Amino acid sequence: MDRIVRLLITGATGFVGSNILRHFSAQGADVAVIVRDHSNTSKIDSEVPHFIYNGSYESIAHAVDSFAPTVVVHAASKVLRTHKAQDIRALLEANILFGTHMLEAMAQAKVKTLINFGTSWQHYHSEAYKPVCLYAATKQAFESMISYYCDAEGLGCITLMLSDTYGPNDPRDKLLQLLLNSWKTGEKLWLSPGDQITNFLHVRDLCNAVEVAIDRSLLSPGHQEQFSVRGSELLSLKSFVALIEEIIGNPLNIKLGGKPYRPREVMKPWMGEMLPNWRQKIGLREGLEEIFHDPNRT
Amino acid sequence: MDRIVRLLITGATGFVGSNILRHFSAQGADVAVIVRDHSNTSKIDSEVPHFIYNGSYESIAHAVDSFAPTVVVHAASKVLRTHKAQDIRALLEANILFGTHMLEAMAQAKVKTLINFGTSWQHYHSEAYKPVCLYAATKQAFESMISYYCDAEGLGCITLMLSDTYGPNDPRDKLLQLLLNSWKTGEKLWLSPGDQITNFLHVRDLCNAVEVAIDRSLLSPGHQEQFSVRGSELLSLKSFVALIEEIIGNPLNIKLGGKPYRPREVMKPWMGEMLPNWRQKIGLREGLEEIFHDPNRT
Repeated sequence: MDRIVRLLITGATGFVGSNILRHFSAQGADVAVIVRDHSNTSKIDSEVPHFIYNGSYESIAHAVDSFAPTVVVHAASKVLRTHKAQDIRALLEANILFGTHMLEAMAQAKVKTLINFGTSWQHYHSEAYKPVCLYAATKQAFESMISYYCDAEGLGCITLMLSDTYGPNDPRDKLLQLLLNSWKTGEKLWLSPGDQITNFLHVRDLCNAVEVAIDRSLLSPGHQEQFSVRGSELLSLKSFVALIEEIIGNPLNIKLGGKPYRPREVMKPWMGEMLPNWRQKIGLREGLEEIFHDPNRT
Repeated sequence: MDRIVRLLITGATGFVGSNILRHFSAQGADVAVIVRDHSNTSKIDSEVPHFIYNGSYESIAHAVDSFAPTVVVHAASKVLRTHKAQDIRALLEANILFGTHMLEAMAQAKVKTLINFGTSWQHYHSEAYKPVCLYAATKQAFESMISYYCDAEGLGCITLMLSDTYGPNDPRDKLLQLLLNSWKTGEKLWLSPGDQITNFLHVRDLCNAVEVAIDRSLLSPGHQEQFSVRGSELLSLKSFVALIEEIIGNPLNIKLGGKPYRPREVMKPWMGEMLPNWRQKIGLREGLEEIFHDPNRT
């Protein structure tokens, strides 16, 4: 990063946020985190200042006023591929209210730069906006809130639109973890027919993208922009599994076609405009080799 | 209305919602209302079934399941031209969460038609989307939620985009009420310079628009559409005041230019696509004469 910034990070107890925290801490940046009051913070370095968001505006305003960041990286998110009716309040509070409270606190404290995260699921069938799921709709809804603060308060925001991310020590219950688990335990894994095109981005490449986005926003403040950050390899799920089998030198105990596609399965990824001045550095084979050659790390 | 419908109405304790309730009740339609647990329901006809929304999904699902509407008219809204930080939670709960709970309950009960209300303030400087205020942003955010239910659940929704509405017995603290109050009391009223173009729609014309929108949605289900419903007269605020003075035959005790325009004042109204097969019937002079010749009604 070219500039000295003070970063306030949300979502630092999650996979993406914790990697962003480590990335910028390792560079010697001044970082602080704000976490939900029910979050498990045991994995956050105790030397990192941390603030609590208890659902109130005041708790966020306190964090922003005390730490006085130059940039907020809003990685907090509640991700649900399918929702239940009882999830709706928590989904909206996590994905719209939390962020709007943050925007308001930034406006009042004159903090001008937000890095936010969206999802390629906002673009079902590659449309300008068609949400795959309600979670994706909440991400789009939050963009509408951001627009107000950009236009009325001169805030700048870059939203990085993600498809799948991966990396070591990923606790999320996603395809790669299921494959890794099946490899370790030999347990049979039932998958869909596997013709959907996947796209995986290594989380360290994502951290680089955040850095590029911060530089861009600081150099040209006051805009609301959205960019895709995604891996350059586009493999069918079938081929992705075959690549892993090649890396480990053995077939996995999986059954392709053993279950149907999910409702509203995304068969082809959205290919939105990429973040300028950023490119993937960690190829998919290299990233997977790191994980499958050193499985104890993950 | 051409068809027999069962209407569930939200916001029936407010000005717009209460007029919609009366309009359809007078036609003999089967109507029920769902009101917030803190709402004053004393003005709602006790024969109208009413359900309580206590902020939970279950309370809305109960209303939808029990009453089994064919159409929901979602007139509930928290309107704030300017917000304070402490308003944000209530604004999002009223304008996004309430409606999303309703959409989910409709999806589960296979209720296919929603009539919703937006605001011309979503279109500052007549842009496709630029919110005048945070309230307008919440209205736009809710459209993103509607999109999911239309696409994934086959719901149909028409949003009527409103500018100013008026009519008898309006308890809201808006320009017309301020003028009426100044006329009655003689109290001096300080206004902006008054060159902004106003647009007023009589609430009975709005009720007709709701009827047209219901017919449209029932005839061609499963779409998400937005239409402007607005008055045909476009007068500057100055000329609007002059029209009232002409009607009452006396000057009002007002000072144009006595205060500045509001921040982000809308000087020219948004002229979006009008609702097809609907037109204003009550001219502005006629509507104002009703109010100013019979001031005790208002």
